[in-house]
Amino acid sequence: MVAQPNAQVVRLGVLGHGVVGSAFVKLVTQQSDQILARSGVRLEVTKVCVRDAKKKHNLPKGAVLVTDSNGLVQSADVDLVVELMGGIEPALKLISESLGKHKPVVTANKALLAKHGVELFAAADAASTDLLFEAAVCGGIPLIRPLRESLRGEPISRVMGIVNGTTNFILTKMSEVGADYSVALAEAQKLGFAEADPTADVEGHDAAAKIAIIASIAFGTTVRAEDVYVEGISKLTAADITIARKFGYAVKLLGVAELDATTSMVSVRVHPALVALNNPLAAVRESFNAVLVDGESSGSLMFYGRGAGGEPTASAVLGDVIDAAINLRKGTHALLGAFKSTKLKEMSAINCEYMIGLEVADKPGVLHAVTGVFARNGVSIRAAEQDGIGEDARLVFLTHDANEAAVQNCLREFKSQDVVKHVGALLRVVANS
Amino acid sequence: MVAQPNAQVVRLGVLGHGVVGSAFVKLVTQQSDQILARSGVRLEVTKVCVRDAKKKHNLPKGAVLVTDSNGLVQSADVDLVVELMGGIEPALKLISESLGKHKPVVTANKALLAKHGVELFAAADAASTDLLFEAAVCGGIPLIRPLRESLRGEPISRVMGIVNGTTNFILTKMSEVGADYSVALAEAQKLGFAEADPTADVEGHDAAAKIAIIASIAFGTTVRAEDVYVEGISKLTAADITIARKFGYAVKLLGVAELDATTSMVSVRVHPALVALNNPLAAVRESFNAVLVDGESSGSLMFYGRGAGGEPTASAVLGDVIDAAINLRKGTHALLGAFKSTKLKEMSAINCEYMIGLEVADKPGVLHAVTGVFARNGVSIRAAEQDGIGEDARLVFLTHDANEAAVQNCLREFKSQDVVKHVGALLRVVANS
Repeated sequence: MVAQPNAQVVRLGVLGHGVVGSAFVKLVTQQSDQILARSGVRLEVTKVCVRDAKKKHNLPKGAVLVTDSNGLVQSADVDLVVELMGGIEPALKLISESLGKHKPVVTANKALLAKHGVELFAAADAASTDLLFEAAVCGGIPLIRPLRESLRGEPISRVMGIVNGTTNFILTKMSEVGADYSVALAEAQKLGFAEADPTADVEGHDAAAKIAIIASIAFGTTVRAEDVYVEGISKLTAADITIARKFGYAVKLLGVAELDATTSMVSVRVHPALVALNNPLAAVRESFNAVLVDGESSGSLMFYGRGAGGEPTASAVLGDVIDAAINLRKGTHALLGAFKSTKLKEMSAINCEYMIGLEVADKPGVLHAVTGVFARNGVSIRAAEQDGIGEDARLVFLTHDANEAAVQNCLREFKSQDVVKHVGALLRVVANS
Repeated sequence: MVAQPNAQVVRLGVLGHGVVGSAFVKLVTQQSDQILARSGVRLEVTKVCVRDAKKKHNLPKGAVLVTDSNGLVQSADVDLVVELMGGIEPALKLISESLGKHKPVVTANKALLAKHGVELFAAADAASTDLLFEAAVCGGIPLIRPLRESLRGEPISRVMGIVNGTTNFILTKMSEVGADYSVALAEAQKLGFAEADPTADVEGHDAAAKIAIIASIAFGTTVRAEDVYVEGISKLTAADITIARKFGYAVKLLGVAELDATTSMVSVRVHPALVALNNPLAAVRESFNAVLVDGESSGSLMFYGRGAGGEPTASAVLGDVIDAAINLRKGTHALLGAFKSTKLKEMSAINCEYMIGLEVADKPGVLHAVTGVFARNGVSIRAAEQDGIGEDARLVFLTHDANEAAVQNCLREFKSQDVVKHVGALLRVVANS
């Protein structure tokens, strides 16, 4: 087949020129010849939309700086829209309009997909147009594509992982140098791994948006960020991490999406969790991310890499842009498929092992009083440790498999016991090896 | 778009019904409805070719057992050929014929691709037909697809990994329970992780075939198994592993493919290697595989999972079959692209840090004599340890970055020194963190 002149050129309109946007424009310009050689498509950035055109923006030759985002989407010299502006509106409107005009869209917009993903996926399929979003989840790590394509025939039972680099950096410092939470957070902020207001990261909201998108793709169901049970890491202490290690576990903030095969219900949650030290997730350090996928035939798979940052994210955007450009020139697209609505499993219905820390009075009968609470609630203990002595005595229990509601009942009873001075960390075991 | 009746059925001819073949036929039959729902294509196994039709084979309804492999490829009721018989011939001839008839092929044949991959890739592109082979490298781990698609726009500098489960199982036992090589091998054989004749695994030949295919895809160059420098693990001792750990390293059999940016030469090798204990590869235990990919923008990515076994491999085959079936029905295919020929970097030209063990006489002047050899060859030492005393004295050195040829000169000189009783392990550091 002989290509017509320029038939294989695909012209890109880029919405947003911040950290990811500028890294993407630079990368696509540098790699243009290589991409042509490998894929037969020449990518050209024709328009870049910014909020403030007075700021200095380095654009490649031929690219025009604009401030009218709607005009960019409508423009006759934009074949494919790359949305890197973030936020819900106007991104939602712009993506919908692009798809409506049969212009493929590549986006890194996690918040938008965690809220409106399923309706956008349906819009893309209805328009027979690509909507690709590898970069929206875990930056540079190829995860969405393997889930959507490599594992298309694979029944997946669980996806879980370290999907937030800020909190993993903080937990690594707390674990490896015994730093307290506030000290580790300050270091993360100083090094640019945490924002001045770290709430979205440390309280688990960022992770919740990612695990919602992952759960939607892995199980073909509609899961939104607001459906995710969320606990952050701000109440963890270095002592919690030390004692967890004694029991053979690392502490990680995990996003977990689990399919209950008997009820077909899906549990989706984010919380600090215990991971056996010999599980590969335990070895994921610093700001790296990793996601473990359990498939019926494939067994455990893990995808590891840089979950954030301009360049890794731009690299994921580029992979999708090349794909969408090839599809556009072939007149085809990747089907996203129908998403079922799912019954979500209540947090109170889950079962796992727990680590529970209690600060107690150091006097006779305490252990008896405390274990009575577990016994009455049907929670069976598999190990106990006393940590510290005298005023600082702390009892830490590791339970056998127990029900969340029963464990929460225990915590309520502990709070009303005189001998219990403080109810500390509650950590759920999610991976025993 | 309304599909014509049966327009979306794709009929599969499966060559081979061994461990992977039977797992694949079972999986595709079980997942058929799910695949139809997710991809719009119904997969039907119409023919399965075996060597011995008298043996018992459990086939799904509608599938016919045949012994004429050529007939299967030519058959009018086979749209897509799944090659799971292994070996070079007749697999090479059958795949070539299928592609010539524009029938897409999915194969798990590592030995064939490591020898004839590039010519088969060219044949597939020439026929505008899919040749997919995720399962040929690291079984169930999605690796080829991310390399080919997600990282298409990404300049890759190095790919390395644990690509043989047998040797990783043996090294895990040697490391964690201090077992000697022969004991660990016997355990692996007992548990089915090693064959009665373990040569292909323990001497690194299996890993060499895999890293050759990975290097071809990652760098878009022609690398064959015979181009790979190979050392196995059969001479390693538990003591080597213990002392490596003292220096902060795990010992892993790695396949390494590295691009030298200044010369554009590619180094491709398999050998026991030192990996820093905090590198994620160090945490890959038992028979698991993992491959670390270093990209310019993406940074380090790791892909982890089951590298062998019927079900994980069948899962990877199925992912490819669904893809090829969708493409077939759309009249499109995935381009493999042109492969350049590459200058391979000689082993003697590589540079890295080394751990070198010497059994020496325990008398004055030994250290002076030995360090003289390093000095004369320009090899600088960064750490030394004496291991054992008296008759069993062993000196272990860790060098700074050094040249392979210089280090090999040192080893030759040591062998001629009276004070050196035995030249032990030579281990290359490939990942410092």
